[in-house]
Amino acid sequence: MLPIAVDAMGGDNAPGDIIAGARRAHEEFGIPILLVGPADAIGDPGPLEVLEASEVIPMDADPGSSVRRMKDSTLVRAAEAVRDGRAAAMVSAGNTGAAMASALLRMGRIKGVSRPAIATPIPDPVGSPCVLLDAGANADCQPEWIVQFAQMGAVYSRDRYGVERPKVGLLSIGEEPTKGNSLVKETHKLMADTDWAAIGAEFIGNIEGRDLMASVADVCVTDGFTGNVTLKSLEGGMRALIGALLGVFDSTDEARAAAETLLPALAPLYHQLDPENTGGALMLGVDGVCIISHGSSSELAMRNAVRTAAEMVEADLVGSIRAAVATG
Amino acid sequence: MLPIAVDAMGGDNAPGDIIAGARRAHEEFGIPILLVGPADAIGDPGPLEVLEASEVIPMDADPGSSVRRMKDSTLVRAAEAVRDGRAAAMVSAGNTGAAMASALLRMGRIKGVSRPAIATPIPDPVGSPCVLLDAGANADCQPEWIVQFAQMGAVYSRDRYGVERPKVGLLSIGEEPTKGNSLVKETHKLMADTDWAAIGAEFIGNIEGRDLMASVADVCVTDGFTGNVTLKSLEGGMRALIGALLGVFDSTDEARAAAETLLPALAPLYHQLDPENTGGALMLGVDGVCIISHGSSSELAMRNAVRTAAEMVEADLVGSIRAAVATG
Repeated sequence: MLPIAVDAMGGDNAPGDIIAGARRAHEEFGIPILLVGPADAIGDPGPLEVLEASEVIPMDADPGSSVRRMKDSTLVRAAEAVRDGRAAAMVSAGNTGAAMASALLRMGRIKGVSRPAIATPIPDPVGSPCVLLDAGANADCQPEWIVQFAQMGAVYSRDRYGVERPKVGLLSIGEEPTKGNSLVKETHKLMADTDWAAIGAEFIGNIEGRDLMASVADVCVTDGFTGNVTLKSLEGGMRALIGALLGVFDSTDEARAAAETLLPALAPLYHQLDPENTGGALMLGVDGVCIISHGSSSELAMRNAVRTAAEMVEADLVGSIRAAVATG
Repeated sequence: MLPIAVDAMGGDNAPGDIIAGARRAHEEFGIPILLVGPADAIGDPGPLEVLEASEVIPMDADPGSSVRRMKDSTLVRAAEAVRDGRAAAMVSAGNTGAAMASALLRMGRIKGVSRPAIATPIPDPVGSPCVLLDAGANADCQPEWIVQFAQMGAVYSRDRYGVERPKVGLLSIGEEPTKGNSLVKETHKLMADTDWAAIGAEFIGNIEGRDLMASVADVCVTDGFTGNVTLKSLEGGMRALIGALLGVFDSTDEARAAAETLLPALAPLYHQLDPENTGGALMLGVDGVCIISHGSSSELAMRNAVRTAAEMVEADLVGSIRAAVATG
């Protein structure tokens, strides 16, 4: 396999934890790595390859102008490595918008794809994640784009989680086809007219926010504004509740002792819900595998993201998406 | 005070728990109650007044046609009681859409209000709730309506939670004014041009989903589609996490003993987050106080909803909203 290009300078914990995570993926799974960044910042790469890139797009920089201006940036060079057949995929925990723009401008779209979308797995306490898309690439959407998001998401659900016949839901505010805003009502009609069997998926109609963590659908599609708000609301809600629980667990000596007893049973749940274990979000629809990890990614998160990238390359996710979109 | 009209037949637990909750509000707080429903279903009302209504709009009936057709329904009669000066407010745990339609058609809008909105408090583990609106009355919105939602929400935050200078945020996908979909970007401009000091509030710009339970804003405005999806996603996420935790707490004898030790410290947190304690959602912008409670409302939830209704009548919420909207 070609190496996975890792943006060594992307994220709050770069380059230390990023490089350490890439190295772990190399050591544990034998995945070849191409670290992208300035040689002096990377230091001794050990067994990993290095692709020199002198510039770093800051986390809060404007995506479009940065990518156009900073042609020797880690993000642009990583995307070019995939385009030029030097790497099999790219992984970055850096500026999300700039990562999307780099991938879109350098790798280009898969033929037939109207708009790439961000697919983010929403963890489920008792089942496999529900893939939410678009999680933020397109704030304003056309109904046709959302149908394509669903096709891409179904392929991803199968390739990533082994779901044989992914159930696809359209996020709305009621189950009936007549419920929703005008965008959703229009999209529902197109979804109902699409041949889901042709790509081995099933359209289950509208689903609601409360279904996202309740094993109702394998894929949930919506516009990028609603998707991003939903994702961040869930993240914030989980953080608030877990923070409050940890406060209770640490409130007295008695509580601390009780919490310690519960720890072995809580650990698997924590593992199941921890975003660090999901392996990051994928940008679906570009002509290459592109993983965009959380800015706060740790060594473990990066190791998992690199592993996911390698798995998606081996599964030929891009080829499957190309075929699915061609049926539409 | 005039009595609070309570839809005795609304909700999954009607009429038993609904009447019991209304009775508790009467006994504990001395609030006069007007039970609306068929006399034979209500039975012995004890110290509560009864307004006869022979029909019940089912939970899943189409709102508009039901309200037009079922003129002797509990929801229509309750709204008429407020309009006719026979009751000070209405409370229902019944069909949400039909409750909204009844209130809108019978009470009418406050002069100057473009569209009424549903205001739902989102609990915060460590602070007062953030009032989210529109939580579902208007799936498609104009920017001007959202500005008015913010004015009404600020008044409500002050009257209900005693927040002196409510901080109002616009729900978006980034803090910068340029982030969001076209509706949000347009709304941001109008919000920035509005005189918030005139109604004793402050516009803090865009906020994100993760800020909702993090004591960032007192009021969060959005369109009714995004608001409803966000609210239900948070509810579902909380339910999934709490369900998983309860599973852990009940997994072994040791875990059960430890959980029992933690119970006294967990109880206040549970109380703080329990939707039953929030007193229901308000429909703001209609010419009367209208509380729409969760369909699963218990006796306790109904008691709290009736108390909230009485408090909002005493605070003259409707008069304050009329004044706030007139400044815009």
